[in-house]
Amino acid sequence: MWKQAASRKADSVNALIPHEWRIPSPPSNQEQVDITGSYVQQFLSAQEIEITEADAAFIAKKTASGEWTAVDVTKAFCHRAALAHQLLNCLHEIFFEDAIAHAQKLDEELASSKRPAGPLHGVPVSLKDQFHVRGVDTTMGYVGWIGTFQGEVGTGKDKVFESEMVRELRAAGAVLYCKTAVPHTLMSGETINNIIGYVWNPKNRNLSAGGSSGGEGALIGLKGSPLGFGTDIGGSIRIPSAFCGVFGIRPSAGRLPYEGMANSMDGQNSILSVVGPLASSVQSLRLAVQAILAQQPWLHDPLVLELPWRSKEEQLILDAAKGATGRLAFGVFTYDEVVAIHPPVARAVDIVVKTVEKLGHELVQWKPPSHDRIFQIGLKTWFYDSGADVQKAFELSGEPQASQVSSLYGAKGRPMDAVQIAENNVLKREIQKEYMDYWNSTQDQTGTGRPVDAIIAPCAPFAAARPNGYTYVGYTLFVNVLDYTSVVIPVTQVDKSIDKALDNFQPISELDKATQATYDPDIYDGAHVSVQLVGRRLQEEKMLAIAELLSDALAKT
Amino acid sequence: MWKQAASRKADSVNALIPHEWRIPSPPSNQEQVDITGSYVQQFLSAQEIEITEADAAFIAKKTASGEWTAVDVTKAFCHRAALAHQLLNCLHEIFFEDAIAHAQKLDEELASSKRPAGPLHGVPVSLKDQFHVRGVDTTMGYVGWIGTFQGEVGTGKDKVFESEMVRELRAAGAVLYCKTAVPHTLMSGETINNIIGYVWNPKNRNLSAGGSSGGEGALIGLKGSPLGFGTDIGGSIRIPSAFCGVFGIRPSAGRLPYEGMANSMDGQNSILSVVGPLASSVQSLRLAVQAILAQQPWLHDPLVLELPWRSKEEQLILDAAKGATGRLAFGVFTYDEVVAIHPPVARAVDIVVKTVEKLGHELVQWKPPSHDRIFQIGLKTWFYDSGADVQKAFELSGEPQASQVSSLYGAKGRPMDAVQIAENNVLKREIQKEYMDYWNSTQDQTGTGRPVDAIIAPCAPFAAARPNGYTYVGYTLFVNVLDYTSVVIPVTQVDKSIDKALDNFQPISELDKATQATYDPDIYDGAHVSVQLVGRRLQEEKMLAIAELLSDALAKT
Repeated sequence: MWKQAASRKADSVNALIPHEWRIPSPPSNQEQVDITGSYVQQFLSAQEIEITEADAAFIAKKTASGEWTAVDVTKAFCHRAALAHQLLNCLHEIFFEDAIAHAQKLDEELASSKRPAGPLHGVPVSLKDQFHVRGVDTTMGYVGWIGTFQGEVGTGKDKVFESEMVRELRAAGAVLYCKTAVPHTLMSGETINNIIGYVWNPKNRNLSAGGSSGGEGALIGLKGSPLGFGTDIGGSIRIPSAFCGVFGIRPSAGRLPYEGMANSMDGQNSILSVVGPLASSVQSLRLAVQAILAQQPWLHDPLVLELPWRSKEEQLILDAAKGATGRLAFGVFTYDEVVAIHPPVARAVDIVVKTVEKLGHELVQWKPPSHDRIFQIGLKTWFYDSGADVQKAFELSGEPQASQVSSLYGAKGRPMDAVQIAENNVLKREIQKEYMDYWNSTQDQTGTGRPVDAIIAPCAPFAAARPNGYTYVGYTLFVNVLDYTSVVIPVTQVDKSIDKALDNFQPISELDKATQATYDPDIYDGAHVSVQLVGRRLQEEKMLAIAELLSDALAKT
Repeated sequence: MWKQAASRKADSVNALIPHEWRIPSPPSNQEQVDITGSYVQQFLSAQEIEITEADAAFIAKKTASGEWTAVDVTKAFCHRAALAHQLLNCLHEIFFEDAIAHAQKLDEELASSKRPAGPLHGVPVSLKDQFHVRGVDTTMGYVGWIGTFQGEVGTGKDKVFESEMVRELRAAGAVLYCKTAVPHTLMSGETINNIIGYVWNPKNRNLSAGGSSGGEGALIGLKGSPLGFGTDIGGSIRIPSAFCGVFGIRPSAGRLPYEGMANSMDGQNSILSVVGPLASSVQSLRLAVQAILAQQPWLHDPLVLELPWRSKEEQLILDAAKGATGRLAFGVFTYDEVVAIHPPVARAVDIVVKTVEKLGHELVQWKPPSHDRIFQIGLKTWFYDSGADVQKAFELSGEPQASQVSSLYGAKGRPMDAVQIAENNVLKREIQKEYMDYWNSTQDQTGTGRPVDAIIAPCAPFAAARPNGYTYVGYTLFVNVLDYTSVVIPVTQVDKSIDKALDNFQPISELDKATQATYDPDIYDGAHVSVQLVGRRLQEEKMLAIAELLSDALAKT
C-alpha cells in the first residue's frame, strides 16, 4: 500500500515537468559521475546558462532594474531544477506554473510602478520541504503525510496554510517554485525517503548530497536554484552546503523565523532547529538574511529576536579586509579527538590556513573543552522522546525507515522524564559557559586585543558521505549545542593524485576506523571539499563578512 | 534537629547587627502597622535619612563626585537594612563589615584616581538569596542548604564561588552588603521559610511583602536598600515591587545574566526565571540595567543576548513625553476572566487610565486570547518534575514545607515525560503567536499608526496578599509565558473610606470567591497599590521610558 502511495506521489510530481525539459535517457551515476558544468549545460540555452550561473545577488540587480525579466529568470531556473531532479532526485514539490504566473505579475508591476517588489524581486527561491506553501503538500518525506497537514486529516490547513517565512519571502519579492527533498525524520546527514529515493551529489554521483537539507544542496550545487532555505539542528544546512560546494549559514536560534514550519519532535526545546539560507555566493546569503530581517520577523514569530541587520558588526571585518585596521585572529582545529578527518578535508583546512596567513591574519591552535562531551549532550536531545514522534509518522503508512534513520529510531523505548531532560539542559549550559570562557581566554594568545574572531573547522570527517556512510555528526553538532553562527565555504575539490588514503592510520575507536575506511581516492575524486567558519552566538553579520573575505581570497589563490 | 539548625542560622545573622542598631523592644505588627516614614526615621540620624531616602540614581551622582562618601552611604543603608530586618525579617545574610571595607576602598581609589569605579560607584546593592557572594551562605531559605553549596557538601564552592552578576556589579562599582529573604522553593507570592519566618510588608504589617523576591520588596520598601536584584518566573520581581510600593522590572529572558545563580528546578527551560532590578525610582532601574549591559554580559553568560542598551528605543517615548511627536497608545484590562481584582486595584488602574487620558494618549480595551489558557500552560511548567527538585532540598534537613508551598509540592508524583513537555512547549509557542497577532491587530484600533505601545494591567488581584492568601498568580504569570517586558509602578494607597468591599460580588468560581473574600478595607488601609506596564518581548528601554513618563505624571496628580 505505502509503495503505491509513494510512487503515485513521485509520479505526480514528475508529471509536472514539461516534456521539453525531460532528459530522454538519463545516464547512470557510473556513466556520468559529475553532472555539473558542461554536462548539464548541454540541455540549456545560452540565456538559460547565463541566468542560472549568476548568483542571487546579481540576479536581484538585473530583475530589479528590469534588465532581466522575472519570467525569463524563473523559467530558466525551473528548467535547470527539472534537470537536477531527473538526475539527482532532489525535489519533493514542483509548482513551476504558479511561479511563472507570479513572475509575470512582478514584471507587470515593475513595468507600471517602476519599483521592485522588494530586495528579492523576481529571485527564484527554493524551500526545503518543511515550509508550508499553498497549493502543494508538505510530506517531509513521509508517505503517511501525503495529502494531509503534517499527518493530520481534516484540519483544513493542507495546501492552504503557509509558513511565516513564506509570507515574508513573497513580501520581499521572491518567486517560489519548488520544495526540496529531505530524509524522512530530518535526522540524517544523507537524504533518502520512500517517495523520491536517494539524493545524489551533483559534483560526484558516487556520493551523498548530504542532509537533511540535501535537496537544497543538490539543487543549488547544480545551479538549479540561486537561493534556498534549509534548516539545521545538527548540521542540516552546513552538511549539504559543504558536500555540494555551495555557501550556507547556520544562524543562531532566534535570528530567522521558523514559525509555522513542519518539523520533527516539535517542542523539544533544548536545541532548536534553525532556518537559514544556502546559495552560490556569500553575497546571496547576506541578501537573503537582510531581506528577511527587513520584514521585522520578530513581530510575527514569537521566538525571533528583535535584531535588525547590524552593519557595524560587519565593519571591523570589512576594514580588516581593506587592511585599514588591525588583523583578525582565527582559531583552527582539524581533529575533535573523537573521529579523524579524511585527507582531502585536512588539505582544505590547510588551504584556508595558508590563505589566512597570506592575508596577514593570526592563527591560534584551538584547544577547546571536550567536543565529545558536547556531542553526547547534543545527541541526547535527539532521543528525549525515544523516537515517539517520528515513529508515529512512519506508522501512518506502515512504510519502513531507511537504514540511515532506523539506526537511530528503529527501536521503541521510553521517553526521558523531566528530571533527565533538566539535567541535560544544565550540562548543556555548563559546557556553553566553559566554551565561552575558553573563547574569551584566547585574547591572551592573539595580538589583536580580542579573542579569536572565528574558528576554521571541518564540517564533517569526509568531503561528502558515501551512501549509508554518515558515521559521525560531531563536527557540525557542536555548533548547535553552543548555538554559534557558522558559515560554510567551498575550498577545493578532491584530487586523487594528491589526496591519498592514509597509509598507517591508527584509529582510536571502531567509529574512527569505520569512518576513515570510507575514504577512497577513486570514489571521491572531484568532490567538493569545504570548511566551516564558526563564530560566536548571533554573529551573522560578522561571520558573513569573514566568509566573504576568505572566499574572495581563496578565489584568487 | 532542623529547628536548631534554623535558629542557629537566624541567630548568627542577627548577631551581625551592631548593638547600637538594635531596636530594644520592637513593636508588634498590631502595635505598629506601618513602619515606614516617621516610624523608622526615629532610629536614624538626619544624614542617614537624607542618604537613604535618595534613590540610587541620585546616590550614584553624589558618590561619583565624592560629595557623599561611599562609606557614609553604605553605613546609612546598613543601618536602615538592620532596622528593616528587625521589623520585617527581610534578610538572609548580612555582610556589613565587608561592605564598609569595600566602600572605604572605593573612596580611596576615587580620591587618588579622581575617577569613579563605574556607573554604580559606591551604590549599595542588595541581592536576593539566589546570588552566590563569597564569604556567606546561599540558603535560598532551606535549612538543609546552610553551610553547603546548593545543598551539596564538599564542592569547595561554598562561600567562594560567585555568580556572574556579582562580578559585574562589583566591576560597576556597587557595594554589596546583604542578601534578602525568599520563600523556600522560590515558588510563592509570599515570603516564608523555616529560618527567618515570614516577611512582612513595611507599609502595612497585616500584609505580605510578596514573593519570591519578598526580602527585596520589604527592604527597598523601607528604604533599607536603594537598589536590589530579584528574579521572576511567575511574578517574583513584580509581586513584591507592587506590594511594597517600589519599582521593578521583569526583563525578557536573555537580557540580564542569570549565570551561576542558585535556582529551583534548574534545567526547566520552557519558561526561564529572569533576573532584574527593584528600586525606589525608574531612573534607578535604568541605571542598573545600563550598568550591567555595559559589562557585556553576553560574553560571560551563554544565555544572554548581545543587546547593548538601545537609546533609540527610548526616543519615541521621550519624544512623546515632550509632546514632540504623536501620541502613545495603551491597552488596558482589569479582569482576566479568571479571578476578579479587589476594589483598590481597580481604582489604581483607573487612576493610571485617567492619567493617560489627561496626557492625551490613547486607550484601547484589551481583549486578548484566553489568559486562562496561558495560565494553565505556565503553571504546568512548574510541575514538570512533580516537585522532585524542591522535595530533595527539604529532605536534606527534614524540615516541613510552609503551607504556601506544600499546596504545590507537598505530594510526590511522577515527573512528566518528554512527550508531555514537548506538547506544552508547542502550546506555549502557539499562544505566544496568537497573542502576538492580537497585539499586532490593535494597530487598527489606535490612531498612532502602531499597535498599542504597552498594556496597563493589575499585578495581582489584591494590593498585597494577606498571610496564606496568595490565591492566584495569573496576573503576573501570563507575562512570563509570553516572555514580555513588564515594569511595576506604585500608583496609590488603599483608603478604607473610598475602597469599600464589593456589595454584591458574583464570583464565577470558588477561587474567585475566596480571592475576593480576602479584601477587608480595615486590614488593607494604607497599603500600596501598584500596576504593571507590560510591553512586548525585549522592550526594556521602551518600557522603562513609559514607566518614567507615567510615574512622573502620576506624581503630579
